[in-house]
Amino acid sequence: MLKENKKYTLKELTQGLDVTIKGDSSTLIKGVCTIDAPSVECITFLMNPLYKKYLPDTKAAAVILQQNEAEMCPVNALICRDPYYIYAKIATFFEEKPNFAQGIHPSVVVGKNTKIDPSAKIAAQCVIGNNVTIGAGVTVGPGCVIGDFCHIELNTYLYANVTLYQQVKVGKRVIIGSGTVIGSDGLGFAKNSGVWHKVPQLGGVTIEDDVEIGANCAIDRGAINNTFIGEGAKLDNLIQVAHNVQIGAHTAIAACVGISGSTIIGKNCLVGGQTGFAGHLIIADNVVITGGTEVSKSIRAPGVYSSGIGGLVSNLEWRKNSARVQRLDKLMERVTQLEHLLAELVERKAT
Amino acid sequence: MLKENKKYTLKELTQGLDVTIKGDSSTLIKGVCTIDAPSVECITFLMNPLYKKYLPDTKAAAVILQQNEAEMCPVNALICRDPYYIYAKIATFFEEKPNFAQGIHPSVVVGKNTKIDPSAKIAAQCVIGNNVTIGAGVTVGPGCVIGDFCHIELNTYLYANVTLYQQVKVGKRVIIGSGTVIGSDGLGFAKNSGVWHKVPQLGGVTIEDDVEIGANCAIDRGAINNTFIGEGAKLDNLIQVAHNVQIGAHTAIAACVGISGSTIIGKNCLVGGQTGFAGHLIIADNVVITGGTEVSKSIRAPGVYSSGIGGLVSNLEWRKNSARVQRLDKLMERVTQLEHLLAELVERKAT
Amino acid sequence: MLKENKKYTLKELTQGLDVTIKGDSSTLIKGVCTIDAPSVECITFLMNPLYKKYLPDTKAAAVILQQNEAEMCPVNALICRDPYYIYAKIATFFEEKPNFAQGIHPSVVVGKNTKIDPSAKIAAQCVIGNNVTIGAGVTVGPGCVIGDFCHIELNTYLYANVTLYQQVKVGKRVIIGSGTVIGSDGLGFAKNSGVWHKVPQLGGVTIEDDVEIGANCAIDRGAINNTFIGEGAKLDNLIQVAHNVQIGAHTAIAACVGISGSTIIGKNCLVGGQTGFAGHLIIADNVVITGGTEVSKSIRAPGVYSSGIGGLVSNLEWRKNSARVQRLDKLMERVTQLEHLLAELVERKAT
Repeated sequence: MLKENKKYTLKELTQGLDVTIKGDSSTLIKGVCTIDAPSVECITFLMNPLYKKYLPDTKAAAVILQQNEAEMCPVNALICRDPYYIYAKIATFFEEKPNFAQGIHPSVVVGKNTKIDPSAKIAAQCVIGNNVTIGAGVTVGPGCVIGDFCHIELNTYLYANVTLYQQVKVGKRVIIGSGTVIGSDGLGFAKNSGVWHKVPQLGGVTIEDDVEIGANCAIDRGAINNTFIGEGAKLDNLIQVAHNVQIGAHTAIAACVGISGSTIIGKNCLVGGQTGFAGHLIIADNVVITGGTEVSKSIRAPGVYSSGIGGLVSNLEWRKNSARVQRLDKLMERVTQLEHLLAELVERKAT
Repeated sequence: MLKENKKYTLKELTQGLDVTIKGDSSTLIKGVCTIDAPSVECITFLMNPLYKKYLPDTKAAAVILQQNEAEMCPVNALICRDPYYIYAKIATFFEEKPNFAQGIHPSVVVGKNTKIDPSAKIAAQCVIGNNVTIGAGVTVGPGCVIGDFCHIELNTYLYANVTLYQQVKVGKRVIIGSGTVIGSDGLGFAKNSGVWHKVPQLGGVTIEDDVEIGANCAIDRGAINNTFIGEGAKLDNLIQVAHNVQIGAHTAIAACVGISGSTIIGKNCLVGGQTGFAGHLIIADNVVITGGTEVSKSIRAPGVYSSGIGGLVSNLEWRKNSARVQRLDKLMERVTQLEHLLAELVERKAT
Repeated sequence: MLKENKKYTLKELTQGLDVTIKGDSSTLIKGVCTIDAPSVECITFLMNPLYKKYLPDTKAAAVILQQNEAEMCPVNALICRDPYYIYAKIATFFEEKPNFAQGIHPSVVVGKNTKIDPSAKIAAQCVIGNNVTIGAGVTVGPGCVIGDFCHIELNTYLYANVTLYQQVKVGKRVIIGSGTVIGSDGLGFAKNSGVWHKVPQLGGVTIEDDVEIGANCAIDRGAINNTFIGEGAKLDNLIQVAHNVQIGAHTAIAACVGISGSTIIGKNCLVGGQTGFAGHLIIADNVVITGGTEVSKSIRAPGVYSSGIGGLVSNLEWRKNSARVQRLDKLMERVTQLEHLLAELVERKAT
């Protein structure tokens, strides 16, 4: 962090949280740090056991941790059940999202029949279309383009250079990262006489409350109905969401995932990075998919799923493995041959 | 759809199309719907057999379908050979692309020696470079940046926040999605004394007529000659096209595909999502590549191609499969051992 | 190339380079060409043996090549040890990066406490935040958004529509492609009572000197400390760099790669396209990873690494391979059964 922030006492930072302070609750904290960093007046947390070894020598002013690690802690300990969650809450004190002046920057171009709440902040160089509604407390970062008939609700925050096509509905407290495009046309084409004819994409996009979408994602509008991202879902960067996809509430999706058209993903799912979904699938609630999986069929039950074979190996080993699989057919034949020979031998012996 | 659109009779919608109307051709249609939706005055189509079950109870005002489903249709039937193609044509009546005022918005910055046809629409906050030519009927959406010496031809449509570097040629009726970057430098570096030296990328990009490119793609300029995308090719979102790549006419490429430098893809190919192409390959015409394939060598004949092994399984099964493959070597040894033993036995018996 | 450039003699082009000219060093060169192109007054190079066959008939005015090919060269030969490196140096004479007027374009919106060197070029429609420092000779292309507390050093070049969030430090002679977003929030969420709570991302990003980053990449800020890209590293397009990642000096990464949070990649590595890294890994220096690899664990030693099994095959063969692997378990059982039977037979014989 580059800035000198305001300082808070441990007591202030933990107000309303289920935390027991072991140490001096009036200790002043000016920011966050990692457990192994040479920081002063900073708070850190211990969650990953890999980092436990740094606890005895930590230079942090306070450590958020679980009961069983409190004894080892040489400084102020904030004891709780879920240190990462408590850290998330405390860290908000030191957050400084880019802040823009209330109102519409004079460089912004605004269309007709557009209602922008006076408490909204529309930063420089934006273009707002016709018939747009922007709610109270909304921030639209510099260079954003908001298409016709878009609705953006209470306290939603768009970083710089976000593009919304027409008819995109964004709920409350949504966060959208820079470069993300929402409402683009899906890959809808009908081939006739050797030529692709565009199928007009006439639906929109609905993004429910508390969704977060990262940077440089592409979320297509629906072909007929709306593409849908459910309440509290979290999407990382560079994710492709094709037309008509539905993503269930509180599902989290890591970067570089591609979801093909009309696939429906359930609630509370976790999707690892670079996973690809075929189209028209149905994925149940509470499904976990490991990174790099090719989801080629629907998943009807909760559980952990993967695809492919073979972890990371040297390129030499990889070549051998591939060759072995190519020889499997031959191996099967040899085993079958052995079985015949042996059967013959046994039989001959018996007679 | 959020807007009340103009209504059209079935007769108007099907004019010039090879369609037989069974029912009342004066029925008014105000939009499109899915076959299972509770819509009024909307038209739908039946193509995917999965949706046939909804036909008897459809609430649509008319269904575009094939002859053999006409009897089951409880409402107006538009009988034709290719319902999806006919739907594509009819749906254009209800399409409403963002429309901008003719001419150059006052906020636009235009360079020197630039020729913009008076019928073109250059939306707010664009930056147009020097020596640019923009043809009749072209739309350049808000926030686009058009580099020096670019040419954009008749009726091409750039959505908001598209970036063209210098020397990009875009043909007629091309559509380019938001966030897409065309003409970026390829990964060209020569290592010398442990340091990468940039190889200047001096070619451009040529995009032929009727190409469509989705959102947030990156298409590099050629190193010496032009990167090339042939007539009528269709690219989805988040696609990487490296320097010197050539994509043949009417080839369709799904999202998240990466094409390495100097690879040539033929005409009328279909490329599934997240496929990766190595560099310097040649792919024949009419090749189909399934999603997630690693194309590691050239493909000389039409056909369907894939790579990797093993579909989607539970993570437990996946671990077992991987372990089995690791044990293949041992298995081969055991079979060889068995063969020796058996040969010995047989021989002994014979003597 | 669309433009008529200045011409240079071979002598001028090779000044200071370790090159022997065989031919007329006063030959005028106006640009570059490929070895098989019908060009006039252009220079080319021969590196890839695949192109050697074109040498005897080349129409280029001069060819950069190695000693052993000089004899076959029908035109001026520029003999050197590393033709591609020499080409890289010579080609810079013909490079024409978009050039903007010195100073700040009147359409730019600039924040408070911002120091922009008078020799910097800030192109149209940019938005520069508060407390920003922009060094001498820096170019910021049209439509860029530079967040608060960013520092951009000497001669760095940002193409159009780049977005830097707050607290991004960019070194000297860095090049950043259009659409790239640097400093976005990482996927940091703590689940509590079934709901994801955002973990504020309080670090920044440090990009060292001579880094090049392509188009439409997403580079997240650190959660606590800075995400880091080391000196001279080269990143292609559409790359995801998650929070806390460190990329070593002079490492080159091809397009569509995803690097998960807190992974550390060493120096002088080469990473093939569409490779995915799990989080919290450590990759040694001088590691080469082939395209499409899933790096699921740390790599402690230099070498070439891959994952998965099975190269490109017809889809039919692919189905068979997958089926074979599914039958491996059965095959193992059959071999075990054979071993038992045979052991029994042998034993019986012995008794």
